[in-house]
Amino acid sequence: MIDQLRRYLPVLEWGRHYDRDDFSNDMIAAVIVTIMLIPQSLAYALLAGLPPEAGIYASIAPIILYAIFGTSRALAVGPVAVVSLLTASAIGQVAEQGTAGYAIAALTLAFMSGAFLVALGVLRLGFLANFLSHPVIAGFITASGILIAASQFRHILGVESHGHTLPEILSSLFAHLDQTNWITLVIGVLATSFLFWVRKGLKPLLRRAGLSPRMADIATKAGPVAAVVSTTLAVWIFGLADKGVAIVGEVPQSLPPLTMPGFSPELISQLMVPAILISIIGFVESISVAQTLAAKKRQRIDPDQELIGLGAANLGAAFTGGYPVTGGFARSVVNFDAGAATPAAGAFTAVGLAIAALALTPLVFFLPKATLAATIIVAVLSLVDFSIVAKTWGYAKADFVAVIATIGLTLGMGVEIGVATGVIISVLLHLYKTSKPHVAEVGLVPGTQHFRNINRHDVETDPSVLTLRVDESLYFVNARFLEDLVQSRISEGCEIKHVILMFSAVNEVDFSALESLEAINRRLKDLGIGLHLSEVKGPVMDKLISSHFLTDLNGRFFLSQYDAWQALKPRHETPRAAE
Amino acid sequence: MIDQLRRYLPVLEWGRHYDRDDFSNDMIAAVIVTIMLIPQSLAYALLAGLPPEAGIYASIAPIILYAIFGTSRALAVGPVAVVSLLTASAIGQVAEQGTAGYAIAALTLAFMSGAFLVALGVLRLGFLANFLSHPVIAGFITASGILIAASQFRHILGVESHGHTLPEILSSLFAHLDQTNWITLVIGVLATSFLFWVRKGLKPLLRRAGLSPRMADIATKAGPVAAVVSTTLAVWIFGLADKGVAIVGEVPQSLPPLTMPGFSPELISQLMVPAILISIIGFVESISVAQTLAAKKRQRIDPDQELIGLGAANLGAAFTGGYPVTGGFARSVVNFDAGAATPAAGAFTAVGLAIAALALTPLVFFLPKATLAATIIVAVLSLVDFSIVAKTWGYAKADFVAVIATIGLTLGMGVEIGVATGVIISVLLHLYKTSKPHVAEVGLVPGTQHFRNINRHDVETDPSVLTLRVDESLYFVNARFLEDLVQSRISEGCEIKHVILMFSAVNEVDFSALESLEAINRRLKDLGIGLHLSEVKGPVMDKLISSHFLTDLNGRFFLSQYDAWQALKPRHETPRAAE
Repeated sequence: MIDQLRRYLPVLEWGRHYDRDDFSNDMIAAVIVTIMLIPQSLAYALLAGLPPEAGIYASIAPIILYAIFGTSRALAVGPVAVVSLLTASAIGQVAEQGTAGYAIAALTLAFMSGAFLVALGVLRLGFLANFLSHPVIAGFITASGILIAASQFRHILGVESHGHTLPEILSSLFAHLDQTNWITLVIGVLATSFLFWVRKGLKPLLRRAGLSPRMADIATKAGPVAAVVSTTLAVWIFGLADKGVAIVGEVPQSLPPLTMPGFSPELISQLMVPAILISIIGFVESISVAQTLAAKKRQRIDPDQELIGLGAANLGAAFTGGYPVTGGFARSVVNFDAGAATPAAGAFTAVGLAIAALALTPLVFFLPKATLAATIIVAVLSLVDFSIVAKTWGYAKADFVAVIATIGLTLGMGVEIGVATGVIISVLLHLYKTSKPHVAEVGLVPGTQHFRNINRHDVETDPSVLTLRVDESLYFVNARFLEDLVQSRISEGCEIKHVILMFSAVNEVDFSALESLEAINRRLKDLGIGLHLSEVKGPVMDKLISSHFLTDLNGRFFLSQYDAWQALKPRHETPRAAE
Repeated sequence: MIDQLRRYLPVLEWGRHYDRDDFSNDMIAAVIVTIMLIPQSLAYALLAGLPPEAGIYASIAPIILYAIFGTSRALAVGPVAVVSLLTASAIGQVAEQGTAGYAIAALTLAFMSGAFLVALGVLRLGFLANFLSHPVIAGFITASGILIAASQFRHILGVESHGHTLPEILSSLFAHLDQTNWITLVIGVLATSFLFWVRKGLKPLLRRAGLSPRMADIATKAGPVAAVVSTTLAVWIFGLADKGVAIVGEVPQSLPPLTMPGFSPELISQLMVPAILISIIGFVESISVAQTLAAKKRQRIDPDQELIGLGAANLGAAFTGGYPVTGGFARSVVNFDAGAATPAAGAFTAVGLAIAALALTPLVFFLPKATLAATIIVAVLSLVDFSIVAKTWGYAKADFVAVIATIGLTLGMGVEIGVATGVIISVLLHLYKTSKPHVAEVGLVPGTQHFRNINRHDVETDPSVLTLRVDESLYFVNARFLEDLVQSRISEGCEIKHVILMFSAVNEVDFSALESLEAINRRLKDLGIGLHLSEVKGPVMDKLISSHFLTDLNGRFFLSQYDAWQALKPRHETPRAAE
């Protein structure tokens, strides 16, 4: 009972050993992360099309719930760029930005995503996330980064524009180019340049000034705070808001409110596909980060429990004015580098953010939206990485096709179609590859018991014995291939008396393949040719034993290919004269 | 040039060697098949909801075109039961039965199906048919047989009814039960019983009368002709048509007309999915028959050329008043057993049917529809075979699930949803199976160079060396699985200094798996643990060489697992005192 509780509530495990050292480590990490999270949360809410406070609310309850249910010691949960983009894209289809319906749809999306994640976790279906191959994820993240950056240009220019695909966004931007607000543009460009410099130039400077690499890194991450403070002051002092610079404006001073997602069947059916996508993409992003950080300390992540942790975080967001969240890369790394020892660091961060939500929101009244856009652009451009295109081109064409399709369709048709098509293409290409398996005709390497490809090695063969090594599991997609192959080899070689299938690399024989083997056996029997199997693995043999194949087989099973060869090759002894 | 022509026109190959013996064999086969085809063609047209002549027209041009382009010597192409059912289901959704639109939709469906098959053949994409696993096909054929038989009961009862799913058909039938025409029912029941008896009782009788098994078989196949003749005479002599017995009525006396399919974008988009389904199901049925017959004579079928042959046949049907066709099992077997030597037998059959269409159609005026329904019911009930359910249950649960889903959904939701869901379920279950591959920790069998599962055998191991044998190709669906596994093993065993991955059964490492291997390597490196690979196959090694993995690897490649073990196991020699 207690063990079961511990499985579902990892907090019971690490909470028992919590001591003063852990506490001070966690406190320090929490202060650093809190400072970094305030501008980031505001910016991602803007990206999702929600009021700025939604970003802060989405960082409070979810962090605490993840601390209770999650297994990673360092993961920091909250709004992230890609999920914010997916949220904007999903909700934009069901409600007008700025309306009450829009905010409710965001809550519903978080609720559905949370429920889906918890369901996957309880049913232990975390493997579903594996359907997103690395190239598809990499292509999707790169394309999303471009889409996000493009969508933020409107805040830098101070114009209205919209769209969920790159052509839509760009054409809308160009159409409104004449309405550019020049002061906004100056602030935006300055903030963007400053943040780029912080990323690229500040760190070496701090290192030269004697800071440790870790401290330099953390200080760099505080760059957005400096940009926020200075541009806010500039707007306030010079009264730029009256000159058309868009500002954040009034943000309610309040703890996260209790909110209720909408449960109308229509809304739920409209958000079903996006909710599933957001859950899976969020989970994949989160688990990669969690695993990378856990590996550094020989800790272990339980993927199914992670689903429950993230699901709980999203359910929390749904009822406290947030929107879909996941474990973010940047914030988790800062948390880890700042020395967070346990998930309690997350809880302390939540307290910090709650204080900010209560007390500090008047301070961001004059914060220009252009600054937030600049922080987003600089953050997401680090996601854009086309090296995956070259890497997959060099390594495997199937993966290359999946990457190109994912990038192209995400940019051209939107995030949902892009990632869905990427998954479908990866699956189809994998099935295609296994549909025509590598099958080598093998012969004996003289003087050994090894059998090798007759086309690559100088080996011993006999025209009456055909040995085929099948380099793939046999299942319905390639079952007929083997039938065709044996058939065509038999119609070529009229002297063949025995066919040996070498099964050393066959990890599965499904029912379709079993029927194909039976058909091959039947046809060879009709022609007076024997069919033999060698080096069949235990689990495959167990299955074949449960069928009729063994009794019908017009030939034998051999433990090793060498045994088969010894038994079946014709004897070229001196003719026994007496007979 | 000539060789290329011969590839696309197999007729050039067999036509060169055609002689008098071939001619007489082909003629005899053609006469037998023609007699059998007349009632069958009328019946299947009825099943497809088309006028009776459509069935005959669909058997003429397609047979000739297949004779020119197809590779099977014995395949007989024309209307078949399952494709007729699929046609009725597809067209019933776009037009009312009996209207001109219905007939045009049938032509369009044949055209699209033909174009799709030719395209697949030219692009050499015949492997797509393999997505239909044997259990899905078996389940689908069984469910279709039940649906077809159920749909024909209305002709036996002489009532109106409709529906494309079993519940629809049965409820519609019960609703109209009070309108039963008793004379029709008597004819229908007598014809059905007679045909069943011909199948089960006549053959032993003929054998006892001294006929050869082959002749007895062929004579049995002529049973429907006897039923047609006798019931037609009965209706004519007793004037039963006036008493409400539905008859075939006037059939135009004409050669196949030149017809034009409809090409409206709306019609084409509505028929797209059914056309693809019909093509693939028709192709699978046809190629199975062709391969079975070819194997008996050590002949070879070229699946891609078969696509072109069937595609040409369907295009022919589209322009000559037919509807989708494929290679049928019953007629092909009769053709083969009757001694057809070349595809010319098909051409002669076409001539016979053309004569029938011109001269004999007045003879079927009084043919009762109940007789045709009886021939269909008896023919399709031989397709119904639930043994696949028990066989898959015993062999593999994944295949069992696919069968049950296909049968259930085909009966309950219609043919298209049934077969599509079957395909999707098979693919998902296959991916699920490979997502959690069998990985065995292995050790050295003492006194040998063999490595076996430590849980099954008494083997030599060392706490500092962990060897995992991966029994599956590594690709995106299971890439993360290996990461998790290595991670969890490392967090358990603190003495581990070396991890060896034994790749003897790994047939592929895709880009996602490569990145997982790199991640494993990086994490182990951080912990000071070496990562080694052993028994990597040639093609996999070639790919790894093209990546950075080799240079980054914190360990070595070993040709054999034994080499790896020899190199990495700690030396337990006497401590060297001098050092």
